[in-house]
Amino acid sequence: MARRMSDGAFLAACRRQPAAHRPVWIMRQAGRYLPEYRELRARVEFETLTRTPELAAEVTLQPLKRFELDAAILFSDIMTPLQGMGVGLSFEPAPIVREPIRTRAQIEALPALEPKRDVPFVLETIRLVRADLPRATPLIGFAGAPFTLLCYLVCGRPSKEFAPARTFLYAQPEDAERLLTHLADAMAAYLSAQVAAGAQALMLFESWAGLLGVPEYTRLALPAVRRTLAALRPLGVPLIYYLNQGSALMGAVAGLDVDVVGVDWRSPLGEVRRVLGPDKAVQGNLDPAALFAPPAELTRAAAAVIAEAGAAPGHIFNLGHGIWPDTDPDAVARLVDFVHEHE
Amino acid sequence: MARRMSDGAFLAACRRQPAAHRPVWIMRQAGRYLPEYRELRARVEFETLTRTPELAAEVTLQPLKRFELDAAILFSDIMTPLQGMGVGLSFEPAPIVREPIRTRAQIEALPALEPKRDVPFVLETIRLVRADLPRATPLIGFAGAPFTLLCYLVCGRPSKEFAPARTFLYAQPEDAERLLTHLADAMAAYLSAQVAAGAQALMLFESWAGLLGVPEYTRLALPAVRRTLAALRPLGVPLIYYLNQGSALMGAVAGLDVDVVGVDWRSPLGEVRRVLGPDKAVQGNLDPAALFAPPAELTRAAAAVIAEAGAAPGHIFNLGHGIWPDTDPDAVARLVDFVHEHE
Repeated sequence: MARRMSDGAFLAACRRQPAAHRPVWIMRQAGRYLPEYRELRARVEFETLTRTPELAAEVTLQPLKRFELDAAILFSDIMTPLQGMGVGLSFEPAPIVREPIRTRAQIEALPALEPKRDVPFVLETIRLVRADLPRATPLIGFAGAPFTLLCYLVCGRPSKEFAPARTFLYAQPEDAERLLTHLADAMAAYLSAQVAAGAQALMLFESWAGLLGVPEYTRLALPAVRRTLAALRPLGVPLIYYLNQGSALMGAVAGLDVDVVGVDWRSPLGEVRRVLGPDKAVQGNLDPAALFAPPAELTRAAAAVIAEAGAAPGHIFNLGHGIWPDTDPDAVARLVDFVHEHE
Repeated sequence: MARRMSDGAFLAACRRQPAAHRPVWIMRQAGRYLPEYRELRARVEFETLTRTPELAAEVTLQPLKRFELDAAILFSDIMTPLQGMGVGLSFEPAPIVREPIRTRAQIEALPALEPKRDVPFVLETIRLVRADLPRATPLIGFAGAPFTLLCYLVCGRPSKEFAPARTFLYAQPEDAERLLTHLADAMAAYLSAQVAAGAQALMLFESWAGLLGVPEYTRLALPAVRRTLAALRPLGVPLIYYLNQGSALMGAVAGLDVDVVGVDWRSPLGEVRRVLGPDKAVQGNLDPAALFAPPAELTRAAAAVIAEAGAAPGHIFNLGHGIWPDTDPDAVARLVDFVHEHE
């Protein structure tokens, strides 16, 4: 492990407490931009990686061996638990649902998720990672937020507009609510099991928040998130809710019982903190494209994120979206060092 | 023509003046959701349609024959003037740039746009449409905003992330500024020629505003828009700037000298009006997916847009993005009637 800075900076920041430095981790930090990951993927399919605890744990730990990151995040896919529930899926590597779920009958036929039966390999991965992680570096477990999972289930494959999912919300609002409730309960069970296996913080990814206007988000997506979070709150670990393209949704999110709100690079962190109030930490939000800038320009862009975020307690530095596969790992190293050495 | 309501409601709303009713038109109102358009497209390629004045005029007028729309908009593509400047393009129907423009040499080799030489068919289309439009129905001319055109030119083809364009901005900021300035001048020339040919309002489409954080938008995209608008202001026609996914950018846009700001369904119009202030009209912003709802639900969603927008002077009803190809034209008719009869 490359870590030299002993601390609990990530967990402290989740709770808006001071720490020795501003913590930083990188969405998709375990993945295709790392040569050691690509080397493994050349021999093993993506799906096999996610279902083989020794390999998933190895991939989870790869970026921690290179960079002084303040947290690890489970290597998995947001669709993995749905596959465990019997949804026919392939990964190309984007998830493809073989038979999109659009009818009441299909929704009612979805079984509940029983994590020990359906995704034992995820729980075993968490145990293996925890055994190998330095004590000071926490492991984040994660799941897709219900509305984001609905988008994939209804559309079958990712698309720019996710038109079938959005049509579904307007044309079959009762079916949408039923599916969202089912997914909210499944993700609550999934994330609870991750904590039981050793996850020390939990993150819900609302990757497709940006598809919804405020009224639809508030009526459909938000109650499902609230339902999942309410089930997780008694577990005592920090809860993180990431929204992509949610600039207009912060007012709606302010009322959620969540510790950290993560945002993409479009939402200025100062404004986000102002709207969310002092009781929530924030996570983000450098544009992944900034990692392609010359070093001085990368530093300037990272400093601008920090200036916008303000005081370190309650800010976890991250990208605003997953790191791109063609990113130079050296740029990541420069970024992590810059954040740690800043101020 | 189906129009019975004689007025100048659209132009009045652009100038925040009272009118007999709240005006409505639909982005991409001339296009694939209309059977009469599909019938024409079955015989004629998209590109041929855009370059044949009689056909482009026919397509422009098709929706006006069905619906009581308050404005017509030129049928064309935002890439058409770039094709006129010699950029090799095909339409599938999304525009594909054969040789993406990424080097200083390519940027310097781009010629200026001379509309009468390069896009005479667009100007002739405008003259034909004006001759056939009822006096009370104005024709909107349009162009792509410079940054949005840059996205297509640099990437070559549309993509979810437009990663090459965003990388270009960070890695080659001086080249980006140079290209944006060139495009700003070309679009100013293009839109000026459209007004000379008869366009009565002008709209700039910033379809990819949502790719940029506030600092990058303010540093790169906004000065180019300002440059185009400044050249157009003396023409005396209303100027409309549409931003897709620009919720976080409204503060930056508030200082633009533009008459109308159009937004997508993610930006609540009440908040948009509050940030933009009383000197700008707004346009939008029903989710195109709402046209797939049962009639009562469509009406509810349209009423919510109107309630959010507030007082009619200064609001032009529209979708928040282009209408989807599989939309039922009957739903459009219901929507247009509902907006006209409201309040």
